[in-house]
Amino acid sequence: MSSPIRGWGLVPGLLPPGARNLITDVPGVTVGHWTLQNARHNTGLTVIVPRPGLYDDPCTAACCVINGYGKTCGLVQVEELGRLETPIALTNTLNVGLVADALVQYTLDTASAPVRSVNPVVGECNDATLNTIAERVMGYDQLQAALAAAGPDFAQGCVGAGAGMICHELKGGIGSASRLVEGYTVGVLALCNYGQLAELNILGRRPGTAIRAKLNEPPRPADRGSCMLILATDLPLSSRQLKRVVRRCAVGLARCGSYWGHGSGDIAIGFTTAAHWPRHADGLTMTEIVWNEDKLDAAFAAAAEAAEESVLNALAAAVPVTGPDGRVCRALCEFKEEVFP
Amino acid sequence: MSSPIRGWGLVPGLLPPGARNLITDVPGVTVGHWTLQNARHNTGLTVIVPRPGLYDDPCTAACCVINGYGKTCGLVQVEELGRLETPIALTNTLNVGLVADALVQYTLDTASAPVRSVNPVVGECNDATLNTIAERVMGYDQLQAALAAAGPDFAQGCVGAGAGMICHELKGGIGSASRLVEGYTVGVLALCNYGQLAELNILGRRPGTAIRAKLNEPPRPADRGSCMLILATDLPLSSRQLKRVVRRCAVGLARCGSYWGHGSGDIAIGFTTAAHWPRHADGLTMTEIVWNEDKLDAAFAAAAEAAEESVLNALAAAVPVTGPDGRVCRALCEFKEEVFP
Amino acid sequence: MSSPIRGWGLVPGLLPPGARNLITDVPGVTVGHWTLQNARHNTGLTVIVPRPGLYDDPCTAACCVINGYGKTCGLVQVEELGRLETPIALTNTLNVGLVADALVQYTLDTASAPVRSVNPVVGECNDATLNTIAERVMGYDQLQAALAAAGPDFAQGCVGAGAGMICHELKGGIGSASRLVEGYTVGVLALCNYGQLAELNILGRRPGTAIRAKLNEPPRPADRGSCMLILATDLPLSSRQLKRVVRRCAVGLARCGSYWGHGSGDIAIGFTTAAHWPRHADGLTMTEIVWNEDKLDAAFAAAAEAAEESVLNALAAAVPVTGPDGRVCRALCEFKEEVFP
Amino acid sequence: MSSPIRGWGLVPGLLPPGARNLITDVPGVTVGHWTLQNARHNTGLTVIVPRPGLYDDPCTAACCVINGYGKTCGLVQVEELGRLETPIALTNTLNVGLVADALVQYTLDTASAPVRSVNPVVGECNDATLNTIAERVMGYDQLQAALAAAGPDFAQGCVGAGAGMICHELKGGIGSASRLVEGYTVGVLALCNYGQLAELNILGRRPGTAIRAKLNEPPRPADRGSCMLILATDLPLSSRQLKRVVRRCAVGLARCGSYWGHGSGDIAIGFTTAAHWPRHADGLTMTEIVWNEDKLDAAFAAAAEAAEESVLNALAAAVPVTGPDGRVCRALCEFKEEVFP
Repeated sequence: MSSPIRGWGLVPGLLPPGARNLITDVPGVTVGHWTLQNARHNTGLTVIVPRPGLYDDPCTAACCVINGYGKTCGLVQVEELGRLETPIALTNTLNVGLVADALVQYTLDTASAPVRSVNPVVGECNDATLNTIAERVMGYDQLQAALAAAGPDFAQGCVGAGAGMICHELKGGIGSASRLVEGYTVGVLALCNYGQLAELNILGRRPGTAIRAKLNEPPRPADRGSCMLILATDLPLSSRQLKRVVRRCAVGLARCGSYWGHGSGDIAIGFTTAAHWPRHADGLTMTEIVWNEDKLDAAFAAAAEAAEESVLNALAAAVPVTGPDGRVCRALCEFKEEVFP
Repeated sequence: MSSPIRGWGLVPGLLPPGARNLITDVPGVTVGHWTLQNARHNTGLTVIVPRPGLYDDPCTAACCVINGYGKTCGLVQVEELGRLETPIALTNTLNVGLVADALVQYTLDTASAPVRSVNPVVGECNDATLNTIAERVMGYDQLQAALAAAGPDFAQGCVGAGAGMICHELKGGIGSASRLVEGYTVGVLALCNYGQLAELNILGRRPGTAIRAKLNEPPRPADRGSCMLILATDLPLSSRQLKRVVRRCAVGLARCGSYWGHGSGDIAIGFTTAAHWPRHADGLTMTEIVWNEDKLDAAFAAAAEAAEESVLNALAAAVPVTGPDGRVCRALCEFKEEVFP
Repeated sequence: MSSPIRGWGLVPGLLPPGARNLITDVPGVTVGHWTLQNARHNTGLTVIVPRPGLYDDPCTAACCVINGYGKTCGLVQVEELGRLETPIALTNTLNVGLVADALVQYTLDTASAPVRSVNPVVGECNDATLNTIAERVMGYDQLQAALAAAGPDFAQGCVGAGAGMICHELKGGIGSASRLVEGYTVGVLALCNYGQLAELNILGRRPGTAIRAKLNEPPRPADRGSCMLILATDLPLSSRQLKRVVRRCAVGLARCGSYWGHGSGDIAIGFTTAAHWPRHADGLTMTEIVWNEDKLDAAFAAAAEAAEESVLNALAAAVPVTGPDGRVCRALCEFKEEVFP
Repeated sequence: MSSPIRGWGLVPGLLPPGARNLITDVPGVTVGHWTLQNARHNTGLTVIVPRPGLYDDPCTAACCVINGYGKTCGLVQVEELGRLETPIALTNTLNVGLVADALVQYTLDTASAPVRSVNPVVGECNDATLNTIAERVMGYDQLQAALAAAGPDFAQGCVGAGAGMICHELKGGIGSASRLVEGYTVGVLALCNYGQLAELNILGRRPGTAIRAKLNEPPRPADRGSCMLILATDLPLSSRQLKRVVRRCAVGLARCGSYWGHGSGDIAIGFTTAAHWPRHADGLTMTEIVWNEDKLDAAFAAAAEAAEESVLNALAAAVPVTGPDGRVCRALCEFKEEVFP
């Protein structure tokens, strides 16, 4: 099991995690990264793939805009139809258009029939402090690389879209976790790039003041980051039910010290692999297995816990990173004494 | 078939209506009125009952706030859960609280087990011009009377909640219509109390100027009315799909000349009797039959057409009514020459 | 300063509170309770009054449905117009209709001109475990009593609408707190009736297991409660900005251990006294002072902190209460050793 | 005045139009097209520019998803902040990503200071029947060309993003209209690509059956189009008020025969040039002039009328266009006898 924060002896929440404690504990879900780290760039692209052949066989989806200072694309159609028809790609703010176009090309290349229309879903956070963001380096090749790398095991921390992210003024990035509910799995992957040091809350520990003292440097400017939260599950949920579950990612985020800052694009997107909505179904009606509405609490708790642990894992897995200006963004792993005084 | 506007030789829309051309063409749905008309009052209460025993056996529901200058209660929970657990009651603006309380008492009286919580749904329009609205006359007895009167056949025009309503400066009230879609039925009941004469549009006919000339009286003050639109169906729809269908009631309203005025509480509430969500279901999952998403257009068209015909029927069925101030609210039936010049 | 949780030596958040650390630190805002406690009842009514004469002089308002399993009335119009025209009343679930009607009567009685329409806002939680809720005891006299008692000082804990509420399986009720932001005040009043013991989180302390051990009784049935959060401020905010601030009440709730449970009507309603929207204004345009959008973070943090402290204050102020079944609902004040082990 | 439908002797609505009867009657607003028409393509790009220097000096904005089967990007942030910081670009469905990226580059090039983040707004309809859409031909040069062409006068019909659009099974495209309200202007530009012939409604005229008879060809497959509606005004409106106005574009669309079809991305985006929200404002508060809420009806009617006339103008201005498959899409101008039988 790959939870960095549990490696520190800290256990977020009450529910049991899945085998990997990753979003990929949901059967069939894979994650892949493409990372660029050099003197000018710390950036990249992360894909979350619900299943192969998604365009021909969309899954149920839902989304929740926690705070909408963000450029995520594709949510209008997810909200209307409750379906997802491409992998979800995460990248930096100014690369959303190019990555959306790469998902269009990917769909044209892989769909079983000619494609007239497709709704690419791309989320983003802003890595402009550690990355020369105006040089938009992402495109079809990078998407292909991330997709080729996708599998059930994947790295956390300063990888993929997380390479250049900053969270609570420390190095942020990619984190993930999962929870088991009645034989099903709820997994979350977070791209963490929000918040101020003073607000950091690690299961009730508030190391911000102590870290600030040791850092011996001024606070970074006001929160202009974001947090993308991707939720996967195999629970049989309608899109309305799934939307209720997805919304609980915001609970986990709040518990880590975020108040969903003004400049933060805090957005949760979820899907369940339980349902299949084949593109060219003929019948007038379809049969859907849904959850008993009055038994949703465990799924809610699972989403909140997995989101909280994902954020903590992003922080715990990160390492210090040097930006194009030569300034080092420090990492939580350097401040264990401040976390455990 | 009871469509007043078809009695005038006008046929709204393209789809075939049900046997009665009423919301009660949806099997099991009943409608009842309680009406009060005297020197001080033209008011009442109308109930739409999806099926008996709704508290124990809720149906799927959805709602759409077209313009929210209104006091309808119960929508928060309908929106969250996609379920309806009481009949829908329509009444005047200042009586919503008392009618909601009457629905609580009705539920306490009729549920199969002790009730701790219930979500009454009450819609309203403002009949203050033709009714001494501050004398709130509705309560449990009036609700009981309307429920006792509920059946598959019911009057349109100046009855029930429609007794004192005004629409396009003419007498408004209750109208209804239905459409057949693939062997299922979509029905609408409208409580019409909105709009100005100049905007009235009857299938492309614009009799406002001619009616104004004949009326020989000044325009009524700015639109402070509302339009409640209740949609019933037996189509197997998820609440998300139903919400998409319910939204199309606004299309029908727009076609009659409404622009969803600022002071108008234009609200659509819909339910489908297809699903059953028994209150104390034990299982973790349930099976739901839903519509093929890509075949929803006929249901959309049906909702738009039934809403348009419902509004026209309310106008065509109405008769002149005298308000407490002695002023007569004229009815469209007095202006056939202006409609067919 | 009246913060019960600070009396325990615990300080939630980073921002300074107002003079009373109550919602009434916002100038002009008053709160009053009417409480009923006898062998059959623990229930009541709490009013939050933004300013006198609100119907003639509405203030800016906004709302946020965190989880919509609730019966709050009045939100449709608040959402559309961004205005509040009555005091906000809180009571029990089955009394919403009667209290809404009492607010109608209060408006008829106190407005400067005849009233045709008014949008009463009533929130609720379910006190059915400690109160014989089906005997709906609230009405005009009780509202009048609460309004007559309204002032800048008010009790917290088992009073008013909080008399019969249960929170994290302990006695809940009314709590309040405030924060100062750039010379303005953000205050929250919470009516707390949600959650399970195991989830309780008091600034990182998790006393649930220890309290359960001492309680020596089985868990209460699944969460069917709610949490109403009323936010007041004198910050000059547009209703859109206010809605963003109000949403952050959910952050405070999440930090106390809530995951916004399925059966919980978690609803936040806010108002600012900064703006005046006189009912019969003649001009075409009005001048509004709004906040610099990019400087909203402090207001967000204030809402989150005040909401968290309000919930903790409700728990800390509560005392044990006996229900109609003779069973005692224990209070957090009995478990200080478990909180500070 | 350039209204094609008025050239036919038809006058939509009751309010007076502006001098050009175009969206550019709103002072300072400009529109430009880039069009590609050859054997493989009928496509293009249309830009609506609220004012120069928008990134440094954003205007108030709002949006409304009428039916969300669409790929428009940028709405999340418009909804949260109520501001627009780039011109609005319209193009075909599969080119949204590339055009969004072109708007990013345009902002990098033209902003007065280095840009870390920008929210490009790009709307789309699907021209795949008349255009080889998979060959995504749009990019920075095309955006630059459209911006360079932008001015107060612009063509309607088969130009820009409208080159390949189909509406009610006839040639669609770009249409525009305006209305005067109390000395201010409300303008709409529509990109029309929706609907079936049978539903077409031209101010009450229903020429569908007659046109079908003359066409002597089978109906086109089910509605997979969309309608983008861009509203501009100089009315001093808050973003909440503007959102209410923008929503009324859907009224105009409904009156032309649309029922907001399932496969249609019907989306309205609006802005007002009245307010300025300079990017680096220092003060804590700002002064905003807003409209008297109770006097919004004229703006609502204006939006509905301008939207209706815009759609009719798109149809009336269009000419027949041959697609890559050699099949001709006929135009309404060929069927005047069927419109005026």
